[in-house]
Amino acid sequence: MTSKPSPPAQEKKRFQPFQVPPRLLFSPGPTPVPPSVLQAMTKTVLGHLDPVFLHCMDEIKAMLQIVFETANRVTFPVSGTGSAGMEAAVFNAVEAGDDIVVCPMGVFGERLLAIIERTPAHPVIVRGEWGEPIEVSKIEAALQSCRPRALALVHAETSTGVAQRLEGLAELAHKYDALLIVDTVASLSGQPVGVDENQIDICYSGSQKCIGAPPGLAPITFSERALERLRTRRTPVQSWYFDVTGIEKYWGQERTYHHTAPISMNYALHEALRLICEEGLEGRWARHELAHRALVAGLEAMNIQMLVTPEHRAVVVNAVCVPEGVDGARVRARLLEEHNLEVAGGLGQLRGKIWRVGLMGESSRREHLLRLLDALHQVLQAEGYACDSGLAAAEQVYAAS
Amino acid sequence: MTSKPSPPAQEKKRFQPFQVPPRLLFSPGPTPVPPSVLQAMTKTVLGHLDPVFLHCMDEIKAMLQIVFETANRVTFPVSGTGSAGMEAAVFNAVEAGDDIVVCPMGVFGERLLAIIERTPAHPVIVRGEWGEPIEVSKIEAALQSCRPRALALVHAETSTGVAQRLEGLAELAHKYDALLIVDTVASLSGQPVGVDENQIDICYSGSQKCIGAPPGLAPITFSERALERLRTRRTPVQSWYFDVTGIEKYWGQERTYHHTAPISMNYALHEALRLICEEGLEGRWARHELAHRALVAGLEAMNIQMLVTPEHRAVVVNAVCVPEGVDGARVRARLLEEHNLEVAGGLGQLRGKIWRVGLMGESSRREHLLRLLDALHQVLQAEGYACDSGLAAAEQVYAAS
Repeated sequence: MTSKPSPPAQEKKRFQPFQVPPRLLFSPGPTPVPPSVLQAMTKTVLGHLDPVFLHCMDEIKAMLQIVFETANRVTFPVSGTGSAGMEAAVFNAVEAGDDIVVCPMGVFGERLLAIIERTPAHPVIVRGEWGEPIEVSKIEAALQSCRPRALALVHAETSTGVAQRLEGLAELAHKYDALLIVDTVASLSGQPVGVDENQIDICYSGSQKCIGAPPGLAPITFSERALERLRTRRTPVQSWYFDVTGIEKYWGQERTYHHTAPISMNYALHEALRLICEEGLEGRWARHELAHRALVAGLEAMNIQMLVTPEHRAVVVNAVCVPEGVDGARVRARLLEEHNLEVAGGLGQLRGKIWRVGLMGESSRREHLLRLLDALHQVLQAEGYACDSGLAAAEQVYAAS
Repeated sequence: MTSKPSPPAQEKKRFQPFQVPPRLLFSPGPTPVPPSVLQAMTKTVLGHLDPVFLHCMDEIKAMLQIVFETANRVTFPVSGTGSAGMEAAVFNAVEAGDDIVVCPMGVFGERLLAIIERTPAHPVIVRGEWGEPIEVSKIEAALQSCRPRALALVHAETSTGVAQRLEGLAELAHKYDALLIVDTVASLSGQPVGVDENQIDICYSGSQKCIGAPPGLAPITFSERALERLRTRRTPVQSWYFDVTGIEKYWGQERTYHHTAPISMNYALHEALRLICEEGLEGRWARHELAHRALVAGLEAMNIQMLVTPEHRAVVVNAVCVPEGVDGARVRARLLEEHNLEVAGGLGQLRGKIWRVGLMGESSRREHLLRLLDALHQVLQAEGYACDSGLAAAEQVYAAS
């Protein structure tokens, strides 16, 4: 057997409990987690087959059905982050010989494509301009050009702040016998998704965005049409960990052990979903919409532009153009260091050009938004960018509501 | 846009905060989580690129290197449970055209095989009897019979309580140009693994076993030999989420965003690893070994047999034969309901025949072990199985230490 001396005393004390500053997150995920959600994780960890935990799972499923607005019986959180949900969606939907139409218009659509490229399926790409949604006519042309088994796209593109309209997409996909796969990592519970109403076949999200739990789980739901596709696969899903047929035996009635569920993260998700149900989806959407309008009004009063035209803007993630002459990275660093506020920078081709402001879950509250606008004004002034405060304009939006 | 009425008041109150009984877990994972580890998860969630979180990641890596006993620079927690670590290990190691020798001797070795069967690599199977380790001569014969690129096996098989000796396996694997992949999900930090000393090329574990954090992360480490294999792959890894070349850019010096790390789970892992470093690996191994010996002595005093012969027993997971005439499932249910103690049942061909007792992390403490032996005695008496108490025999082991 390996034998090593015990570490010397100073080595034993080398690592200290971790200290965390009181950040307020306006990045588009992770988002601020309500205290009761954090506290839920301090509950005693149960076994993954403990009847009490199985009951918790049933309630998580019921609440996810409410949040996804679906009656889908196969609805559960994938044991990984949003990208794990993305991979589970793609891997279960397609196999060798399948065409899949994919519509990237930013980093997360490109990630969908990158995942499809790891499968033996063939991607048919409809690439959009960053900052704009995909034109539906181009999607239809792509569906017509191949024998599509799925159409995959992102609802609210976190890298550009664009929302893709979901209405009508299912009719289009189903007309060509394709499943509709929609990424709602950023949007779910912050703006309407409507899985059943919009006939989405596979829809996934992330725990750490509008849902307001820590990152680590990816809620997902499968329509009967998607399950039928699973049943008639010719080849196994290329990941054992993400194979829904196996996972469903644990989340469904059979309760067959698949892998050990992340117990504490599921406690957090349970509480976060409970808070959503208590607020009600409509009220929550309205709160997000109002925060979005107040942010835009505040920024416009500061003479700062949005990247996306009003009709295509996502409510939950806002792409804000860094004003001419301002060092966007410095402003973000000062917001973080001087004000404990986190705003994200641009990704890929938008690096340095935009700030990304998430108004998701807790961050879409009035008092937080006003704090952000005030701090941004102070930092911009200190950086030599002369502008008015955006507070009055934002408050006016709230007053008028 | 979808429009739905707000839920009626009774619907809003349908779900209540989740209540958890004070279970003490003797299942072989999840295991009892120390209070400071649970508390660590209540810290403010930081952004995944926040400099303060990046520092936390550096400390996690440094502590994982201590626990794995390795200098491997690519050492980090996979964002999923132990099975995710298994999949990451296999997917990164092999590709189409590769032979891989795999040695199942229980459920988790069979899972390794099931995952290999999802890859385009070819498994060469050395199957052992459940309850016994794999014979090294059979492993060598298999390595000789093909052109192996990897040899994969489980160190402590959670389903049977068998420990496979690790010494000499690397020399064997490397002689045939195969990477050595070892599953230490159950064993890491509970009994010696010695990644560098035993020249293991890819070694993975789970946060929820001896490490004592909640389930949700899978620590993994790659030798330079394994990284060289990654660099010379002809095809991409079949999972984007588990592609170590991408993840390493985030955990390494480049800090390039890959996917959002499970922030709170990493806080928990940081604190759990800190407690391990404070105790020291040698002290921790000794504590586990002592608990194991005390359990066996107690059970033998109760006239209960172990499944595995002494020289092949894992320290951390104990396969206990259900005595003749006793209903094993009833005993487990009574332990849970009457005593809040969880013991696991047998899996697969051992269903109903054994109990599986995890002595992992917190559960391998003297006071907990004695509580288990006492409760088991009470339940067995109540079930009509006449036996002595195992307490005195167990206490003797502790007294003699």
